[in-house]
Amino acid sequence: MRKLGKTEIEDIARGAALLGAGGGGDPYIGKLVAFGAIEDCGPVTLLDPEEIPDDALIVPFAMMGAPTVLCEKIIGGNEYKALFDIVSNHFGKSIYATMPMEAGGLNSMFPIAAAARLGLPLVDCDGMGRAFPELQMVTFTIGGISASPMALADEKGNTVIFETITNKWTEELARAVTMSCGGSVAVALYCLTGAQLKEYGVKGIVTRSEKLGAALRTVKKVVDKTPEEQFLEFSEGIKIFKGKIADVLRETKGAFNYGKVVLEGIGEYKGHKAQVIFQNENLSAEVDGEIMATVPDLICLVDTDTFIPVPTDALKYGKRVMVVGLKCFEMWRSKEGLELVGPGYFGIDTEYVPVEIRAQGGRKNV
Amino acid sequence: MRKLGKTEIEDIARGAALLGAGGGGDPYIGKLVAFGAIEDCGPVTLLDPEEIPDDALIVPFAMMGAPTVLCEKIIGGNEYKALFDIVSNHFGKSIYATMPMEAGGLNSMFPIAAAARLGLPLVDCDGMGRAFPELQMVTFTIGGISASPMALADEKGNTVIFETITNKWTEELARAVTMSCGGSVAVALYCLTGAQLKEYGVKGIVTRSEKLGAALRTVKKVVDKTPEEQFLEFSEGIKIFKGKIADVLRETKGAFNYGKVVLEGIGEYKGHKAQVIFQNENLSAEVDGEIMATVPDLICLVDTDTFIPVPTDALKYGKRVMVVGLKCFEMWRSKEGLELVGPGYFGIDTEYVPVEIRAQGGRKNV
Repeated sequence: MRKLGKTEIEDIARGAALLGAGGGGDPYIGKLVAFGAIEDCGPVTLLDPEEIPDDALIVPFAMMGAPTVLCEKIIGGNEYKALFDIVSNHFGKSIYATMPMEAGGLNSMFPIAAAARLGLPLVDCDGMGRAFPELQMVTFTIGGISASPMALADEKGNTVIFETITNKWTEELARAVTMSCGGSVAVALYCLTGAQLKEYGVKGIVTRSEKLGAALRTVKKVVDKTPEEQFLEFSEGIKIFKGKIADVLRETKGAFNYGKVVLEGIGEYKGHKAQVIFQNENLSAEVDGEIMATVPDLICLVDTDTFIPVPTDALKYGKRVMVVGLKCFEMWRSKEGLELVGPGYFGIDTEYVPVEIRAQGGRKNV
Repeated sequence: MRKLGKTEIEDIARGAALLGAGGGGDPYIGKLVAFGAIEDCGPVTLLDPEEIPDDALIVPFAMMGAPTVLCEKIIGGNEYKALFDIVSNHFGKSIYATMPMEAGGLNSMFPIAAAARLGLPLVDCDGMGRAFPELQMVTFTIGGISASPMALADEKGNTVIFETITNKWTEELARAVTMSCGGSVAVALYCLTGAQLKEYGVKGIVTRSEKLGAALRTVKKVVDKTPEEQFLEFSEGIKIFKGKIADVLRETKGAFNYGKVVLEGIGEYKGHKAQVIFQNENLSAEVDGEIMATVPDLICLVDTDTFIPVPTDALKYGKRVMVVGLKCFEMWRSKEGLELVGPGYFGIDTEYVPVEIRAQGGRKNV
């Protein structure tokens, strides 16, 4: 148990943006929302999963929608209470704590704001260890835990409760409502017991985000290694490419941001080409036509000088980025995990090979 | 209080199809659904609104979606109980009776099936006195009664509960879910007290449908008047046109059937042309470019020989039809009623003039 103040929040936002793997929205806006809440209501208590009683009711909170919309159409403030009252009434039980569903600049921050405004602690745990575009893509689905009852609220005061036969149907119906509500809404879903959380959650993710964020903040101050070596070391990142953005294709469809970014090599990658495909999050990275990483591993684009993550909605012509692969949470590499979020689900025609294996057997650094 | 058996149901379906004003679906399919339910569970009790206690909870039942889809993707059978359990739990109160929301070949029949299967009586009342395409278009909206909590169920077992800020938002969100569920779903909405029902409902609509249906069934057996004179008399219909269908344009969009039917005059209308615009239901009728009737009055197309109503989804090239206008329920002619369902709402560029006034001041019979 410890308190999260402004420094911690700022580091969490920065680190979570890296784990967002291109999705999860702008950490600057996320940070402002969390700051506003702790200024009004005081710091938030972070609980280790082991501190949670097995029968406690834990209700994750997230914003659903396309990151480009989320950044412009922000939460109203009444949604937190509306959602948690619905869930608490449904179970006839008070809510013990909230938690994030995914990493990412926005969805790491909204649960902190929810916790502050509702006077609840936050659990150091999520359901992805990264960000994914669809709501059934959580470790809890692997554990057979239902996304529903799922509560949804928009900033105008409309609320909806879903009870569905599968988590994919929850995604389907909630996505339709999200679009009708203008492209982004607040949701509470995967209501869990403490025991379920401990068995299937990605534990320690808030602390990991915070450590990554703190390391990113101080990356230039050490002198015995190049900043890049240092970044790759603390992030446990595998360098895939460095290049200048030559083209970005983007489309908002079904409350998702779809697209592709094309890179022309710089430095040791001069003369080579790469492309990264995304659906909110980065899905695959190819160098000279050869796949170097795919979901569920994390494909992150970071600024070549500052190592600040560049989300898919901030990709711009001419920007210089390094493409880095990070190993995903081990549960994603299981048969069930790969069915849910492997390359096949996203229509990428390749077997899943872990990013660290592709790096050894595949393309060497030039 | 009286019982509804097969003869009554058959007449109600036929009469309600006329009041469906082109919408509300196929009475043959509706009838089969109701027959199945009373064969399994026995006849249904019809209650007069005056028999309902003021504080009783009345829950209307309807199918939502495009009639063309409704005819192919019929109700599963478990939806009735799922919906009524949700509503009953929500209010912590048992449900006294069910009722239709609108007339029409399908939505007059599903509430009978719901009543039979749940062992509830049916109230002789609805919220339109005809059919309209959107769910906020009921007299209860004029009375300030909320459509929500609205419960929705599909045949697969998914359920959704909506709590919205306006009835138009209920329509918006429920329509999005309806489309995601395949274009038709079962809904329970406008949960009413007995007192509200008596103040704002269209009372006696089931009995009116039944009388119309019985008259349609026997129209050829009287000899002192032509069948057409007889039909216009018992339906209180205003003859607008008679013609052969020369063209039908149809489009299914947003779970609605949109379109237009063009008629070439026959008999006393030879040499003249007419067209009728529809969105599930018929919205306006023009003869030689002059508007002769608009919503909220009922515009009905019936077979020139049998006077059987021809719904918009059964319009076919070459069919001979009479276009008949019927006066709408008086509440629709109020300022609030016309805002909700007048020609302006549907984008028809004309003032509302009651159909009987247009008939006098406008085009005479040739």
